Parts: sequence; C-alpha cells; structure tokens
Amino acid sequence: MLNNEEKRKISLKNYEDWQKAIDKKDLRIAVIGIGRIGLPTSLVISKRGFMTYGIDINPVLVEKVNQGGGDPPIPFVLDEPNLAETLKDVVLKGLFKATTQFEQFAKISDVILICVPTPVTEHKVPDYSIIDNVVKDIGSLKDDLKNKIIIFEPTLGPHYVEKHGIPSIESFSGLKVNRDFWVVSCPERANPGYIMENLTSVPRIVGGSNDFAGKVITSLYKKVYNVEIIQVSNPRTANSIKLIENIFRTVNIAFANEISQLMRRLDIDYMEVLKGAATKYNFLPHYPGPGVGGPCLPSNPYYLIDDGYKVSFTPNLVRLATEINQRQPAHITELIFEGLNKIGYPIAGTPIAFLGISYKANVKDIQISSAIPIIEDLRNYNASVKVYDPFYKSDRFLNMKIAPDYKFIQQDYPIIVVHTDHKEFCTNEFKQYLKKCSNLKVLVDCHNIYEYQELPQGIYYIGVGRPAKYIE
Amino acid sequence: MLNNEEKRKISLKNYEDWQKAIDKKDLRIAVIGIGRIGLPTSLVISKRGFMTYGIDINPVLVEKVNQGGGDPPIPFVLDEPNLAETLKDVVLKGLFKATTQFEQFAKISDVILICVPTPVTEHKVPDYSIIDNVVKDIGSLKDDLKNKIIIFEPTLGPHYVEKHGIPSIESFSGLKVNRDFWVVSCPERANPGYIMENLTSVPRIVGGSNDFAGKVITSLYKKVYNVEIIQVSNPRTANSIKLIENIFRTVNIAFANEISQLMRRLDIDYMEVLKGAATKYNFLPHYPGPGVGGPCLPSNPYYLIDDGYKVSFTPNLVRLATEINQRQPAHITELIFEGLNKIGYPIAGTPIAFLGISYKANVKDIQISSAIPIIEDLRNYNASVKVYDPFYKSDRFLNMKIAPDYKFIQQDYPIIVVHTDHKEFCTNEFKQYLKKCSNLKVLVDCHNIYEYQELPQGIYYIGVGRPAKYIE
Repeated sequence: MLNNEEKRKISLKNYEDWQKAIDKKDLRIAVIGIGRIGLPTSLVISKRGFMTYGIDINPVLVEKVNQGGGDPPIPFVLDEPNLAETLKDVVLKGLFKATTQFEQFAKISDVILICVPTPVTEHKVPDYSIIDNVVKDIGSLKDDLKNKIIIFEPTLGPHYVEKHGIPSIESFSGLKVNRDFWVVSCPERANPGYIMENLTSVPRIVGGSNDFAGKVITSLYKKVYNVEIIQVSNPRTANSIKLIENIFRTVNIAFANEISQLMRRLDIDYMEVLKGAATKYNFLPHYPGPGVGGPCLPSNPYYLIDDGYKVSFTPNLVRLATEINQRQPAHITELIFEGLNKIGYPIAGTPIAFLGISYKANVKDIQISSAIPIIEDLRNYNASVKVYDPFYKSDRFLNMKIAPDYKFIQQDYPIIVVHTDHKEFCTNEFKQYLKKCSNLKVLVDCHNIYEYQELPQGIYYIGVGRPAKYIE
Repeated sequence: MLNNEEKRKISLKNYEDWQKAIDKKDLRIAVIGIGRIGLPTSLVISKRGFMTYGIDINPVLVEKVNQGGGDPPIPFVLDEPNLAETLKDVVLKGLFKATTQFEQFAKISDVILICVPTPVTEHKVPDYSIIDNVVKDIGSLKDDLKNKIIIFEPTLGPHYVEKHGIPSIESFSGLKVNRDFWVVSCPERANPGYIMENLTSVPRIVGGSNDFAGKVITSLYKKVYNVEIIQVSNPRTANSIKLIENIFRTVNIAFANEISQLMRRLDIDYMEVLKGAATKYNFLPHYPGPGVGGPCLPSNPYYLIDDGYKVSFTPNLVRLATEINQRQPAHITELIFEGLNKIGYPIAGTPIAFLGISYKANVKDIQISSAIPIIEDLRNYNASVKVYDPFYKSDRFLNMKIAPDYKFIQQDYPIIVVHTDHKEFCTNEFKQYLKKCSNLKVLVDCHNIYEYQELPQGIYYIGVGRPAKYIE
C-alpha cells in the first residue's frame, strides 16, 4: 500500500492546484491524535473519499482502529452514535488507516490536522505539553513539510498558534510560514454524544496564517463536512470564537447557579422564575445544576485567562464565574445536609443512593464530573454512598463498585441523590420504582427533573434553586 | 361627573363578580403615578373602555394631561410613539381623568395600580421612599380599601411587597390581606421608545397575594392588554422574574464589555469574534458599548443585591457585572486618549465633538447615560467638548449648550466621539459629511456602527473591542 502512495506526486503550489485536488479528492490527510475528536474527524474525512492517516502514540488504540473497532471495541467508540459503523466502513474500504508512525505518514500527507488534547493542570493553567511535542515533531519534518497545510483543531489560548505554534515550527524546520508551509486554526465545535452529527451540521470557523491558507481549508472543509464555513482574519480570532462561545455558557451557568442559591434563601422557586423570564423576547434561560463538567466548560475559561495574564488584563467576571461553578458541588452537599436534617439524620453512617456520575445526561463521560467532588465530600463526612449509573454498570468509581442497577435503593436507603439527568431516571418505570421504596424519605434532584406530583408521597424533595418541599 | 360615579355601586365579593365587571368593563382603575410608565399604562387601560383615574402629585402634569397633552405638551409624551394620539383620544372620550386628589379617587376605584418610580441612591441602595408613601396613603384609606385589589408595577426587591408593602397596608388600614383587600405584583416589562407597543405585545407576569387575586388580575390584564399572562405563585416570584430578565442582560453586557477590553489588548476584533460565535446554536451575542444606562439595567441588580444582603448571600457575579459596566465609561476615555495619542494630541485643550448623549439609540433619555461620566472625565482633563444630540437640539447639558446640528464638526474638530448610536449618525448624509471634515483625524465609535470602508480616508478609527485602525 505504502509503495503506491509514495509514487503519488501532486504539486500544490497555488489555490487552483489545491482546488483541483479537493475536487478530485486527491489529497492525503494526516490526523494527529485519534481520540474522542480526532477519530470521528478522521472518519468523516475518509468517508468523504479522502485518504486519511490517523496517527497516535497508543499502539493498542491504533491496532483496534485498524481492525475496524476491535473486540472488545475501543470504549469511547461505542458511545458516539454512528461512530462504530462508520469506522468499520472506512477501514474496509481502505480509506482510513491508523498508525503510530508519525514521520512516515505525515511526510506523505498534504494536510496535517492536529487533534490532540489540551488539558488544564490542577493549578488551572493550560497544559500545552502534548501539542508542543506535536508542533516539534511537525517542525522536525524539515523540508518534507514544504507545501503542507497544518490545521489546529484543539481549544487553545487565542495567541498559541501565532505566538508559539508557528514560531516553533519555523524554528525546528528552518522553513517560513506563508512561503513554505501554511497554518490554519479551525477549533472543533462538537458536543460529546453528538460528535458525528455536529461535525456535519455545525458551521466551522477557519482562520488562516494568510488568506490563501484560509481559503484552501474553507474549500476542503466545505467539501468534507458540507457545513457553512466562516473564514475569519487569523488564527487568534478563530481560537477566540471557540473560547467565547463556551465561556458564554460558563458565565451564564454560573449566573444560574449563583441566583439559584439566593432564590432558595428567599423562598423562591428559580425554575418558576426562569419559566416566567423566558417569556421576555431577549432572555435566554440557563439552568442551575451540580456544577459544570466535561472537556470544555470547566477548562476553556483558563485558556483565555492565561492569555489575559500575559497582557496584564485578567477577565475577572470569567474567573469568578468559573469559581462559582467549581463551588456548586459543595452546594449540593449542603442540599443533602438540608434534606437529611429534615428527617433528623446525620450524614455520617447514612446510606446514600447516588444516581448518575456522568458529567452530563446520556453520555459515558466522567471528565471533571461534579459527581467526584460531591461523593468525596460525602465520604469525608462518613456517609455510606452507593453509586449507580446506566453507562457504568458494575464498573469501579472512586474505589467503589458501581451497582448493576438501581434496584438496591429499596433495601434501606432513606435518601437518593439524582446527580445526572440520564434518560433512565426520567422514565415512568423509575418513578414507579421510587414509590415502592418504602424507606425513602428524601430526594435531592440536581437538575430539577421531577414534578412534585410524580413523586412518592411523604418524602422531602430538594431541588436546585427551589425551596425544600414536603410531598403530600 | 363625580356625583354619578359616587352613585355607582358594584359588589365585588368573589371571582364571578369580578369577571362580570371585567366583561362589562364596569371597573374603575386608579393609577398612582402617571409618568413614563404610569401614563401609557393608564391610556391603554382607558382606551380599552375602563374608567381610569391618573393620580399624581405634580399639578402641572395633571393639568396638561387633562388638556390632552397641553401646549407645550408634556415632554416625555412626545417621545413614545402613539402616546400623544391615545392621550387626546381617551381624554376626549372622558375615559381618563388625571387628578392630584389621591383619597377621593382611590376610594371610588376598584383597582389601585401603583406606577411610581423606585430609584437607587448614589450609595447603590434601593430608594423605596416614594412607594413607601404610596403604600401608607393606601393603608390610610382604612375601610374604604375594602374589596379593592392593589397592583404593584414598579421594579422592586423580591420581598418588598410581601415583607414590607402588605404589612404596612395592613398596619395603616387595620384590614387583613386576602380577606379585606388583595395585592398583586405585575412588574412592567416595557422598553422606553417602545412602551405603547410593548404594553400590548409582551407577556405579563402576575403574582397575587393569593390565587383569587392572581386570577382576577390575570383576567383583567388579558382583557386590557390582549397579551399572554403568566400567573405565578406569589408576588416575590413575579418581582424576581422582572429582575432576573434585566440582570441577565446586565451580566451579559458586562461579559461583552470585559472581553472587548481584553480582545483589543490581544489585537483581536471582538465584533468578528461575536459574528463567528453567533453561528453556534447555543450562543446569544451581546455587544460591548460605553456602559449601560436608562431606568432598568444600571439599577435592577441592586434590588436583588439588597434582598441578598438581608439573607447574608451577596450575588457576587451580579455585583461584579454591575461594577464592570460602571467602569466602561472610563474605558471610553482611555480609547479617546489612545486615538489622540495616535495623532500626537493631548486631551487638554483639544476640541472634541461628542455626538449623542441619550443612554440608548433613538430615545430622548439621559437617565444614568454613560455620556455623563465620559464628558465629566474629558472636562476634568481640560478637553474642550462640544455636544450634539438630535433629541436635545439647543438644550443645555452639564452646563453646556448643545449644538443645533452636527455641522460644527467641520470647523476645527480633530476627533469625534459617537457615543449614542442614533439613526442620524448611521445615515449616508452623516457619513458623507464626515468626508468633508478635512480636520478630522480620529473617530471613536462607542457602538461599532461604522464599517471601515465607509469612513473617510486618513483617519484613525477606534471601536470598542476592536484594534485601532488607520483608514487607508
């Protein structure tokens, strides 16, 4: 296979050459990092008919991907609708190949698409070490990098690409951007649980090192994803857009969380307030909950704050919003205290049924989930916590075995905490089951998913931003 | 007239009585305070056929209103589309009468609607003194208050009505709420410049002292305004809804203002960022500007903060947002400094053309306008400011005479600050005029209303959240 590929020679000197290659699908794309974003990205590109190489340092992942999923399959592949089928399809057709060999496959590719994670350290500082290494590897291609376009898809501080990425590539390669190679920022905008769908429906933002690079990737992405592409002035604008759209949510969820706590104290139901306010034409409701989790909302503010530090301008509102959301799990503990206090129980020793550990509904993902600090809190208070989550049946979590189903509640659990609003906890079956739990006395609902009238009589219902309610 | 009115006797003992009276329009409504909200409210009610008394302490206002507008007319009447015509109409038909006699007309009314202002002091504390007096006057009606419903329309802290208003009325009257009289909160939701239109199109929130009161006023307001009515659990919920929908905007405008300052420092155009982010399905753009003004956004957070203090829970995000918006005028001064610095001018002694003093576009209203602190700042720096606003031609403002038109700029003004985005400053005529101003070197655009290509060549353009730009 590789020999044929090496024989292929196309000349990509100007926009017309690229456009022709895009039209004929005669481009090779190397995707660096085939994790939760990189793999689906590779699959959509290869399914559209472009030869795609998925490069990753994890040999087990690479092998399983080349088997079309492996057995047992890669865990996260099963979580995303339509991912497993597409993987089998493109591997079978020979359009997608995973590999650990960076140099060999990056060399023969025309576009290098970076899809590695950019986490935040426990000090709340962006950790660019993984992408720094990728940038170094790309620079080390030296003359083989000529005429390639490098795409940055991770979430990054606005200035990472222009002030760090490009200078590093130039320095390692000895080449010059916009003469020998080109760079484009095109931050991914996909939402876990909807990645395959989002990739082919949500508009993309493209900001090139120059207009030529932006235009080429705009054309390529239109072809590949069939979505609207917004070409912006430069990579820093593209990266800012990704950050601002997520930070907008962080700020508004913090607003909801803060106000929800105040409303409880004022004996006002914030859910009723939100329903009323939503009838004003310029209001957009955001809902209180147990905190924000996942790969985006908890971390994205820190990329912006970090670039802010560098120009001596801290966005205080953004920082405060992040901190409010971080404290929200402690508020849930407070609600649990309040509920147990209603029935005269301490937390210590009380069996607590904790339902749902994912950071959001209907996905298998516990990254920065608020379930972690809440359960740690409860255990610090010597509660006896038993956990169930339909996506983690019988797995282990925080050194506990997760229950195979929720039927244990009936035994002797006076309190349930519904942490994640998974579908299963909204079913009639579940609600009917609750009525059979004769020892149940308190329900803490971290997402306000229940109506009072559907709850068992004689329990205390504690919602977020709602006054405690005895169900009669 | 009064004699006939006094003879009228209806018995309003239960919901059916009220419903019958509403159907027959056989109710008298006293509106306390006929200012910017009370007058249009009175007019809509009376136009629908209900006899309405507008009670106000200002005898000049009362006289002019009874003349159908007076000559010269009441200033604010002319500002609201459709207000002057409706006033003439209902006065002519004898459906609306203004008066300074509270007791006499409140007594014979079935509904007392409070529409007085609730400002915030310079210490950022709600000033309830006006409404406290109204509440006292209402209580002093004693037995004459029986069977009446009192509606609170002003913006208030969530708990004002229940913890202060009702107890005061009970104490002054010796009557009991929900037995002798009823109370409803129905905060106005109208936007200056669109008040008559909003009154008959924006849904209303009704929260009664009990369900009966809520239902009666829901029925009355449906009849009067022909809009959706959302009946909520109690007055505190209704008041919270009004606050939260405005504070949502305060917080999001603060977010825009804070980020816009950071983006300039990062050499990023925030307007381009917002345009890109708006293509994400869950993003709602708010735009940076010179600060927030007017009767609602700058003050509403303080009612909530004040009630928060009382339960020892300060909403810090809301407070910070308010403070960010308060500092935004100082940022505009900074932009003016930057613009003048580009051309080597100091602020001291430089003639500055300042266009637009209203707090928002196309209304005649300078309440808490950011124009005030900006101009004060500039004068403290010894600038020579000349002001023009199409709504305040030749008026006086901050001890200055306002220019009759903008044609003075041509003379010797190197810098224009477009503070308010009035229509006139967006016209082609204005843009063509700018090209004739040969001494013009800097334009500071507080609302980013201009495109680079429509500006005169050779000037520096300074937008909010946009890098300074030399127009070539």
